[in-house]
Amino acid sequence: MRTVFFISDRTGITAEALGNSLLTQFPEIEFKRVNLAFIDSLKKARTVANLIQEASKTDAQPALIFSTQVSNQYRKILENSGGIIFDFFETFISKMEKTLDAKSSHEMGLSHGIGNKNTYSSRIDSINFALNNDDGLNTKNYESADIILTGVSRSGKTPTCLFLALQYGIYAANYPLIEEDLNTTNLPSILRKYKNKLYGLSINPVRLQNIRGERRSNSGYASIEQCRKEVRRAEDMFIQNEIPFIDTSHISIEEIASRILQKSKLERRY
Amino acid sequence: MRTVFFISDRTGITAEALGNSLLTQFPEIEFKRVNLAFIDSLKKARTVANLIQEASKTDAQPALIFSTQVSNQYRKILENSGGIIFDFFETFISKMEKTLDAKSSHEMGLSHGIGNKNTYSSRIDSINFALNNDDGLNTKNYESADIILTGVSRSGKTPTCLFLALQYGIYAANYPLIEEDLNTTNLPSILRKYKNKLYGLSINPVRLQNIRGERRSNSGYASIEQCRKEVRRAEDMFIQNEIPFIDTSHISIEEIASRILQKSKLERRY
Repeated sequence: MRTVFFISDRTGITAEALGNSLLTQFPEIEFKRVNLAFIDSLKKARTVANLIQEASKTDAQPALIFSTQVSNQYRKILENSGGIIFDFFETFISKMEKTLDAKSSHEMGLSHGIGNKNTYSSRIDSINFALNNDDGLNTKNYESADIILTGVSRSGKTPTCLFLALQYGIYAANYPLIEEDLNTTNLPSILRKYKNKLYGLSINPVRLQNIRGERRSNSGYASIEQCRKEVRRAEDMFIQNEIPFIDTSHISIEEIASRILQKSKLERRY
Repeated sequence: MRTVFFISDRTGITAEALGNSLLTQFPEIEFKRVNLAFIDSLKKARTVANLIQEASKTDAQPALIFSTQVSNQYRKILENSGGIIFDFFETFISKMEKTLDAKSSHEMGLSHGIGNKNTYSSRIDSINFALNNDDGLNTKNYESADIILTGVSRSGKTPTCLFLALQYGIYAANYPLIEEDLNTTNLPSILRKYKNKLYGLSINPVRLQNIRGERRSNSGYASIEQCRKEVRRAEDMFIQNEIPFIDTSHISIEEIASRILQKSKLERRY
């Protein structure tokens, strides 16, 4: 077991994202992750250095440190803890200064600030849009949607809409295909005039059965026959109407959302 | 104007997060951002290299490239485009191999895979929990909540709950403080037995007025008097009942969520 510290003077989200993505390259090794955000004082930096020292002693090998520490002073304290540091800030900042022929501000906490207030509002607006237009609610707002996701129940529509809103500021609505929609391969009438905004989500029937079964096991809704029938009919509908669609079975919410963004050539608002 | 490319063989979310965080250190320079995700074939890599070459010619200075390209072959094509590359993968991977005394798998697309299926389900469950327990709905589920956010209307409760769910798998409910709750500094009766799960959101009254005014300008709801009164009373309630609270006025959703996670010592589930 090898201890890994994710350390940041702010939220730590970036240090974790990149650090975890590097760790996935070593699937054979088991890591113990410690996330320490908002390390923005001398005292906190020293406390963290002690934790790193202790973990390295317990593991009998130096801990890994993934850090986005802007302060040179605090970073030095981490470096002297006996752990092995991978600093995502310091590694690049001097090359950037040289490339841009400019000094970096070296100011903490810039990266997750609220930024432009209009940007903030538009992001909140897109989240509210997703919430108000979830699951076939308020189909009258489809005029203002950037995209309308559609698919059978539990194919991943809601989390994908929310992620599109949070990450990219996209106005995403979603419409569930229910039994009566699936009696023909024609698009449900409400969707016809928005054909160009539609994007389908499909899913492996066995995976769908698992997901549905967690909630309502032994129900007709979660039976493999029902799942197979719904998925096949939904895909027939997408193909018949030339609606692009994506299989959500084996990819994360992030990846579903970013693939849709790319393939539909949507402009991000955030 | 300087063109910056964010290039990834997968979603590009990590390359963008770290790249943007580095760019905020140069607030005086104006950047044109180009996001190119899923660059996972020779043909795509070559097309991108051409785009970089063109942008560098137009800008009359080399474009910046932030990349998390796992393939050595595709990365070399990017490196030879004339842009200046900051590679978040290659820069660290050999030091990691040395530290861990192991070879990296150099396999693309590991970082945003679906991971463990239980993890995926628990993340979806937490999103559903946030949706089903938003805005004072279903207060009977508070027993299963990890945390209950409370505050006046438009103080940021819903997006914070959703982000806590998406990023950390936390079960977050929220309860809006309405006029009648604010007539006293006592906790609303429904919240009393969950006192230890409560976290307050506060906001600068002028900022609140702006946010409310965007939707309903000139309404009593958005008047500065009303905003001042509600915020003051909500804060009095938090203080009186020793409910921790955070001012959401100047920080992003990410930062509100991660500060709450840290201060409340909640265990992330994801």
